[in-house]
Amino acid sequence: MRAASPAVVALGGGHGLSASLSALRLMTDRITAVVTVADDGGSSGRLRDELGVLPPGDLRMALAALCDDSDWGQTWRDVLQHRFSSAGDLDQHAVGNLLIVALWELLGDTVEGLDWVGKLLGARGRVLPMAAVPLLIEADVVDAAGTTRRVVGQSAVAVTTGTINQVRLDPADPPACPEAVAAIESADWVVLGPGSWYTSVLPHLLVPGLHDALHRTRARMIVTLNLAAGDSGETAGMRADQYLEVLQRYAPDLRVDAVVADPSAVDDVAALSARCAGQGSRLLLRQVGRGDGTPRHDPLRLAGAYSDVLDGFLGDVGTRELPDQ
Amino acid sequence: MRAASPAVVALGGGHGLSASLSALRLMTDRITAVVTVADDGGSSGRLRDELGVLPPGDLRMALAALCDDSDWGQTWRDVLQHRFSSAGDLDQHAVGNLLIVALWELLGDTVEGLDWVGKLLGARGRVLPMAAVPLLIEADVVDAAGTTRRVVGQSAVAVTTGTINQVRLDPADPPACPEAVAAIESADWVVLGPGSWYTSVLPHLLVPGLHDALHRTRARMIVTLNLAAGDSGETAGMRADQYLEVLQRYAPDLRVDAVVADPSAVDDVAALSARCAGQGSRLLLRQVGRGDGTPRHDPLRLAGAYSDVLDGFLGDVGTRELPDQ
Repeated sequence: MRAASPAVVALGGGHGLSASLSALRLMTDRITAVVTVADDGGSSGRLRDELGVLPPGDLRMALAALCDDSDWGQTWRDVLQHRFSSAGDLDQHAVGNLLIVALWELLGDTVEGLDWVGKLLGARGRVLPMAAVPLLIEADVVDAAGTTRRVVGQSAVAVTTGTINQVRLDPADPPACPEAVAAIESADWVVLGPGSWYTSVLPHLLVPGLHDALHRTRARMIVTLNLAAGDSGETAGMRADQYLEVLQRYAPDLRVDAVVADPSAVDDVAALSARCAGQGSRLLLRQVGRGDGTPRHDPLRLAGAYSDVLDGFLGDVGTRELPDQ
Repeated sequence: MRAASPAVVALGGGHGLSASLSALRLMTDRITAVVTVADDGGSSGRLRDELGVLPPGDLRMALAALCDDSDWGQTWRDVLQHRFSSAGDLDQHAVGNLLIVALWELLGDTVEGLDWVGKLLGARGRVLPMAAVPLLIEADVVDAAGTTRRVVGQSAVAVTTGTINQVRLDPADPPACPEAVAAIESADWVVLGPGSWYTSVLPHLLVPGLHDALHRTRARMIVTLNLAAGDSGETAGMRADQYLEVLQRYAPDLRVDAVVADPSAVDDVAALSARCAGQGSRLLLRQVGRGDGTPRHDPLRLAGAYSDVLDGFLGDVGTRELPDQ
C-alpha cells in the first residue's frame, strides 16, 4: 500500500466491478464502490419483486470483493456468496442478498445496512448504491432486419442479440445516493468499468446526480475496458474503441484521463489509439487478464496497471500514450 | 459475575430456554445450551423439509438469548430474529434460521456452524443441538371420551386438546450431539426447563446419550417449572407437581436437586412440597415471573433464584425446602 492512500471511487456492477475492486483493495483502503441497482433477474429480481427493495445482488458482490483476508472475513464472505440449492422456495437465493435486505428492513436505511455488512466482512472501503430507488433498464435494440424494438429489464438487455441503439433508465430521473455523489466529488480518481457496458457501466451516467458529480469532480478518470470485447449479448461485435465511442455518446463532455485495455481484447490497436488521442485520454495497453482463456481480470496485474497509470500522472510524463514497461 | 464461574448446561427449547439462558448469562459465561431439534412448524419446518437440515429455530432463539450487550451484538441479534413479511416465498422466514443453515451447508458441520453464529453475536457460551439428526415428536393423546390417538409432530402435539399419555421420538434412538454429552458430564449444574414440557423439556430424556449423561453427571440438577402451569395445549389442566411426576415417569432415577417455582403458578403448594420432599428435591418458591400478567420469566429474578439455590447447596444448609429470603 502507498504511503498516502488515494481516495478511489469505482463505478460498475456485477463481475466487472468485483474485478476492479479486487485490484483496488490491494492499493488503498479508501475505496467507494458505486453500484448499479437495476438487476431484475435471479435472486435479486425475486427480492425486489417480493419485498419492494433495491436489488441487492451487485451490492453483495462488491462487498464480497472488498472483504478482508482473515479467517473471519473469508468465512463470512463465503456465507454471503452462498446460494441455497433446492426444489423449493429458497433455490438460488444468495444468503448475502437476504442478509442485506434484512438489515435494510431492520434499520430502515440503505447505506447504514450496507455499512453493517461491510463491518461484518471487515471490508476495505464502502459499498453504495448508485441510486436510492430500484431502477429498470430499457434499451432500443435493432435486429438484423433493421427493425427497432424496446427491450425492458437488465437481464433481458444483457442477453439481447440485436444491436443496442439507445439505453434508458426507468424512472428516467432517479435520485442519486447522496453519499455516492459526495464520494465522487472528493475522490482522487474514479474508475469506470470493466463490466457489462450498457447494463452496468453506462447506467451511472444516466443518473443525473452522478452524471453531474462525474463532470464536476477533480478526480482523474480511468476507464477499464473489458477483456472479452464483443463476445456475445449486449456488446456482440463491438470493437474496443467503440466502447469509448458509446461512452462519449452518453457523456460527450466527460474527461477521460486514461484507458486501460488488455491487448488480447483489442483487435484494432490503431483505432483504439486514435480514439484515445482524439478524446485526450492516455492509453495503457497491458496484459491485465489472467491469460488462462477466461475473460477475467487478474487483480495483481490490474492493480499494477492502475499504479502505473497513476504514477504517470503523478510524474506528469506528458505523453498521451502511457509506455508499457 | 461470580469469581469462579460455574459451568452450566441448560436444556430445553423455544421461549422457555430463552428465559433460562437470559438469566444464566447474567451469572456465568460458561453456559452450554442443549436445544431440542424436533420443530416441524413455521420457518424451521419449511427449512427441514426443503433443505433436509436440522430445524434451526430453537437454536437461533437460544443464540439470540446469549448475545452480548454491545451495539454490535444487539444489532446482529435483531437481524437473526428478524422475519421477512411478504405475500411470497420468504414470508415468515427468520433471517437467523437462513444464516445458520447457510453456515451448516458451507462448513459441513453443525456445531462449527453454530459456533460461528455465536461468535458473530459475541454470545456468552455455546449452543448445541440435543441430537445430530432432525427428530419427530409423537404423542399418544387421550381425548375426553377416553379414546387414544397418535399425534405426530411437535407443532401438532404442542396444541393438542387431549391429555398426553405418552411421548416418543422418531427415530427412537437418535445419536446425541457428542459435545452436548461432554458438556453435561463436566457441568457444575444442569437446568431443565422452563418450557413446553412434552415437546421441549422431556425430549432430552428420550435421547439415550443425553439420558445417560444426565444420570452419570455429578452436576447439581435444577428443574424450573413453568409460569403458566396448565393454561392450554399440551399441558392443559396439569398442576405444578404433576410436571415433576411426568418428569419422574420418563427418568425415575434422575436425581433432581432443586425445583424453582413461582407461587403464582402453583395451585397446590402442599402437593408440590410433598412431591419435592418425596423425590429428595429442595423447593424454592419465589416470584421469578415479571408479575405483569404475562407468563414470562424475569431474567434478574430468575438469576437471583438460581443464585440462592446454588448458595444453598454451597452452604449445604441441610434443609429440604429452601427458605425464601
